[in-house]
Amino acid sequence: MNQWGERFRVSIFGESHGAGIGIVIDGIPSGTKLDLDKIAFRMKRRAPGRNTLSTQRREADEVKILSGFYNGMTTGTPLCGVIFNTDTRSRDYTPELLRPGHADFTALCKYGESRDFRGGGHFSGRITAPLVFAGAVAQQILSERGIEVGAHIYSIENVFDTPFDMAGVDKKTLNELLYKEFPVIDDSKGREMSAVIEKYKSEKNSVGGTVECAVCGISPGVGSPFFGSVESRISSMMFSVPAVKGIEFGLGFRFAETDGKYANDEFYTDGQKIMTYTNHNGGINGGITNGMPIVFRTALKPTPSIASEQRTVDISKMENTKIEIKGRHDPCIVHRAVPVIEAAAAIAILDMIL
Amino acid sequence: MNQWGERFRVSIFGESHGAGIGIVIDGIPSGTKLDLDKIAFRMKRRAPGRNTLSTQRREADEVKILSGFYNGMTTGTPLCGVIFNTDTRSRDYTPELLRPGHADFTALCKYGESRDFRGGGHFSGRITAPLVFAGAVAQQILSERGIEVGAHIYSIENVFDTPFDMAGVDKKTLNELLYKEFPVIDDSKGREMSAVIEKYKSEKNSVGGTVECAVCGISPGVGSPFFGSVESRISSMMFSVPAVKGIEFGLGFRFAETDGKYANDEFYTDGQKIMTYTNHNGGINGGITNGMPIVFRTALKPTPSIASEQRTVDISKMENTKIEIKGRHDPCIVHRAVPVIEAAAAIAILDMIL
Amino acid sequence: MNQWGERFRVSIFGESHGAGIGIVIDGIPSGTKLDLDKIAFRMKRRAPGRNTLSTQRREADEVKILSGFYNGMTTGTPLCGVIFNTDTRSRDYTPELLRPGHADFTALCKYGESRDFRGGGHFSGRITAPLVFAGAVAQQILSERGIEVGAHIYSIENVFDTPFDMAGVDKKTLNELLYKEFPVIDDSKGREMSAVIEKYKSEKNSVGGTVECAVCGISPGVGSPFFGSVESRISSMMFSVPAVKGIEFGLGFRFAETDGKYANDEFYTDGQKIMTYTNHNGGINGGITNGMPIVFRTALKPTPSIASEQRTVDISKMENTKIEIKGRHDPCIVHRAVPVIEAAAAIAILDMIL
Amino acid sequence: MNQWGERFRVSIFGESHGAGIGIVIDGIPSGTKLDLDKIAFRMKRRAPGRNTLSTQRREADEVKILSGFYNGMTTGTPLCGVIFNTDTRSRDYTPELLRPGHADFTALCKYGESRDFRGGGHFSGRITAPLVFAGAVAQQILSERGIEVGAHIYSIENVFDTPFDMAGVDKKTLNELLYKEFPVIDDSKGREMSAVIEKYKSEKNSVGGTVECAVCGISPGVGSPFFGSVESRISSMMFSVPAVKGIEFGLGFRFAETDGKYANDEFYTDGQKIMTYTNHNGGINGGITNGMPIVFRTALKPTPSIASEQRTVDISKMENTKIEIKGRHDPCIVHRAVPVIEAAAAIAILDMIL
Repeated sequence: MNQWGERFRVSIFGESHGAGIGIVIDGIPSGTKLDLDKIAFRMKRRAPGRNTLSTQRREADEVKILSGFYNGMTTGTPLCGVIFNTDTRSRDYTPELLRPGHADFTALCKYGESRDFRGGGHFSGRITAPLVFAGAVAQQILSERGIEVGAHIYSIENVFDTPFDMAGVDKKTLNELLYKEFPVIDDSKGREMSAVIEKYKSEKNSVGGTVECAVCGISPGVGSPFFGSVESRISSMMFSVPAVKGIEFGLGFRFAETDGKYANDEFYTDGQKIMTYTNHNGGINGGITNGMPIVFRTALKPTPSIASEQRTVDISKMENTKIEIKGRHDPCIVHRAVPVIEAAAAIAILDMIL
Repeated sequence: MNQWGERFRVSIFGESHGAGIGIVIDGIPSGTKLDLDKIAFRMKRRAPGRNTLSTQRREADEVKILSGFYNGMTTGTPLCGVIFNTDTRSRDYTPELLRPGHADFTALCKYGESRDFRGGGHFSGRITAPLVFAGAVAQQILSERGIEVGAHIYSIENVFDTPFDMAGVDKKTLNELLYKEFPVIDDSKGREMSAVIEKYKSEKNSVGGTVECAVCGISPGVGSPFFGSVESRISSMMFSVPAVKGIEFGLGFRFAETDGKYANDEFYTDGQKIMTYTNHNGGINGGITNGMPIVFRTALKPTPSIASEQRTVDISKMENTKIEIKGRHDPCIVHRAVPVIEAAAAIAILDMIL
Repeated sequence: MNQWGERFRVSIFGESHGAGIGIVIDGIPSGTKLDLDKIAFRMKRRAPGRNTLSTQRREADEVKILSGFYNGMTTGTPLCGVIFNTDTRSRDYTPELLRPGHADFTALCKYGESRDFRGGGHFSGRITAPLVFAGAVAQQILSERGIEVGAHIYSIENVFDTPFDMAGVDKKTLNELLYKEFPVIDDSKGREMSAVIEKYKSEKNSVGGTVECAVCGISPGVGSPFFGSVESRISSMMFSVPAVKGIEFGLGFRFAETDGKYANDEFYTDGQKIMTYTNHNGGINGGITNGMPIVFRTALKPTPSIASEQRTVDISKMENTKIEIKGRHDPCIVHRAVPVIEAAAAIAILDMIL
Repeated sequence: MNQWGERFRVSIFGESHGAGIGIVIDGIPSGTKLDLDKIAFRMKRRAPGRNTLSTQRREADEVKILSGFYNGMTTGTPLCGVIFNTDTRSRDYTPELLRPGHADFTALCKYGESRDFRGGGHFSGRITAPLVFAGAVAQQILSERGIEVGAHIYSIENVFDTPFDMAGVDKKTLNELLYKEFPVIDDSKGREMSAVIEKYKSEKNSVGGTVECAVCGISPGVGSPFFGSVESRISSMMFSVPAVKGIEFGLGFRFAETDGKYANDEFYTDGQKIMTYTNHNGGINGGITNGMPIVFRTALKPTPSIASEQRTVDISKMENTKIEIKGRHDPCIVHRAVPVIEAAAAIAILDMIL
């Protein structure tokens, strides 16, 4: 179902080439001032057409707020934000040929012939734009409560950025990343990553990567055991972001190769507060925050839309055939996914603390 | 909240050293015959005290069904299964010392002084017993519909079992694993793993690992885009299992290092059915099953209960101190987690197809 | 929360004098043909400005569909319908004077100063327009499955229409009511009711009434005991309709004055089907449909907006004062509530049978 | 589904003649002291076998708490309370004859042959015992927050008790009712009611009535417009109580016969607080509490189990036949429903304010 959340509920809608896409947000505390410029800034970070590393589709992604907002403040009732689609080129899509790696076949199985296939329809990465909008609203509310969410490109293919210092990552680090066009900690690695993406683009291919995200300033005691763990809530939201195929918290998969002595985060106190020396658990024990930064990584697969010839099925004839995908596509989705993952995390976190 | 599911809803309760633990299951189709022996068999796979690789706490883990079951069949109304606790030794627990890696501190932050700390209370791995019960019920219903869920220990520290052939894994493979005491595909690797666990046990330490799980026989078209993707639902349930800190579907984190040409699963048809040559996406595109086996891996951290001395805080005095954890603990949780992960997957899958 | 439903989920938004009002509907089966003229017809039955018995605010109430609809059919993904507000006259509203019988005070308590008070904001009866839209969609799906929902004005003050024959009401009766401008069974009673409304209007007063609604063609076995009874689901939806203050099923409050011999609906069979001689239970036993028509009545209070002077509080000074409500208001809401109640019932029913 | 609530979630289970009945409550604030004697007292008010006006089935209705309760306090994790059935006489039930007014036929339609028909199974009024338990827990939490819920028998057939003074009903009134065996305001009317019940009992018949319930001490601002109105939440819970067939808030159905001038509750202030002169709206405007007492009435139908001969169908032969219901039954359910309705209201209210 296209709704998510217990207390900060979002209800998403729209198709890539339909009249509009949008989101209804319920549960926003009334009287929240929203800085629309900051929201627009976050929208722009995700928007297509910004540079040669992304698709050339140009969408202003301006959000029109229909409700729940009056005199610069939220009213407490549902806020609906709509983005009207403008630059659509549906002629690029041929529904009878299944695009490998895409949802064409699964959408057909689920929805049948009447699905809106144009541009991937509801499955398009474009539908993450309303998610970024809702996340930007969430992030403003979180900021007021001292919580910041930020992410960086952790890897593209085999080029790795400096990882977050899990026990020490702070708002300053996150803030610096926010204003980078290519958000990495080590800019020299960023240039290497860009070169990798350009290479795959020139080869009519695409490439994957990982995004590392941190949440700083969250109090201990947020989340639940069975079945509302912080990991459950964040992952459930994160796997709604197209292309995400893995998530790990703290040491994540490295836990599997370690022993308890190393893995455990020992406690210490300064007499006031209880902290851990290390943060291998990524700020979460037993599904509940322990006050250390939440740190997680997501794996994103290469953009499935590639210009190279691929084997597929023509469903109109049930015959094996070939496809060359036309249209304007991203050779890598990872950098554009950074604000989406931040938004998704912000929504998940806010839903838990309201 | 301690409830999960839309159509096959479970509501879990209980503490490690309380009167009993259990689960209420709502949404079971009426008239389902339940083979109680099969359920008991699955319970036993998780039960403690079976061998030297596990805790010596002995619990029969017999489930008493209080409702929803009459004349050997489900009635359609909620089925409540209860396990009464028997072998509890609460004296081993000292609430003023926070156990590193455990939920002691976070439970205190969330629930305050009145939490039930004995044996980890509601955070104990013991609470997965009712989950295995509910999963065993789910698995019988799935089996009738041609779907099997099975898992193996994929790695312990740096010893790796043969991975599933993602495009080819079938019910036969899963069934063989079901009847192994130490469920691995390559038994020689299993012996190596056991040796690793024994080594860590002898060093008063513990070790982590990964579990690989597959779901065979599922039709294409199950799941939803935003926000009910198969990955969202499975991961949300999986991160309720204590010690799980990462999950990946298909290639998972390896996607991040690959290119689109490799990552995409090309389609082919035999004229009747549409399949993919490879199964890098783990049976899921756009959040929806494509008819290939669902394959995912979870990372489990080393058991946090280790007998070695660790630094911690005495919360009664807010002073730094040391702790040596007494009690009967698992040097490795991975092999006992296999039936839990199968159960959690079965619940998630059944909830989506009912 | 502004969302309702398990399988046919609606998410409503908007304020009376904001940019727009609308609804997102999730769970519509894909491939459903929607007759937009029929939807517009139902919208018009609720729309203001149609005659002297209703408010003179003129709103075309044209719904713009933004998503989930392609080539005349639903796509299976969320359908968002928006109505842009046009004829707003916010100057008629003075937020510092609480209007008796309205939500001004409670909205202030809940949402604080930042609420959108103009025209009652989110509490306006105008927000029922998107509900009628969603209901019209639901009604088309129900019709295809042989189910019709219809209602009539059962009473205005002390003028009573002929009640439904609870055991015998059928689709023909409901269909005739659908095309009446003033939907009553006995048109002479309708004229009396109109006269009563005109009288109260001329006295700067308003008047209440009841609406009787029936659902024909529903199969036995729909609904649940605890807590999803048909009565629970319908009433939960119905009390979202502004002005509804009571609901009763079958004999309803008359049950309280009867004995078991009379109240029980005895069973009989024609050898094929099981029916009841009477339908005192309004088609529902134990929360589940028995195949007889569902019949219920709702009580609607008089429109609280009356032009007469009333005592109230000026909240800017916390002083007792008087108010004379300006603006364009309905002297009676009951006839305009008929399509709203039908829509609400259709949504509730469809949610249960999908 | 057998779960209810957003923040105080209950999950009910059990059949009249099964092993046990019970409820899992999630969302209880940790550290709540529970007075088990007070809970037992409320359980006893509902328990059968107390006097000649009720069924002679004798059940101690002792609740065994399995979890979520430690050292006299709630732990914050789910609390499961179980009542084991003892005095069952299943031989009184013949599943092939449908009992008029009961859920026998609808249960068959929904659940098929495998339903547990003994004693009405899950549809038995007996399943309200766990509801009273959960309500008793809720009432203790409400009491600490200054909120009391209480009810009286408002009518049996045509004998009416003094109604609540809707604007003036207070905790003192509710407390007096709590300790009455036959809870009415005017005891002389109570004796008349008892006589009516005895009369119907002697005639092998049964009789209906109404219960009036009030909630005192609730703050303004509780509840939501679309779709979480206080009326929606209370009614949704109330129609889960077997035999309830109508509900009205404030003037309820009398609203339909009044005019706006009368119906509106005018506001006044003492400079500190805003109140209404009258309370015709039963403490709720726009779905949200206004700080006045919440007052509502529910209609309860006569017990369908009557000893007189009734026409029915033998489903084993699909033939028309007669039935005389054996077993031990209540000639009137209204007095035993009083604590159930209080409990249901307490659960609904607590769910909204947590």
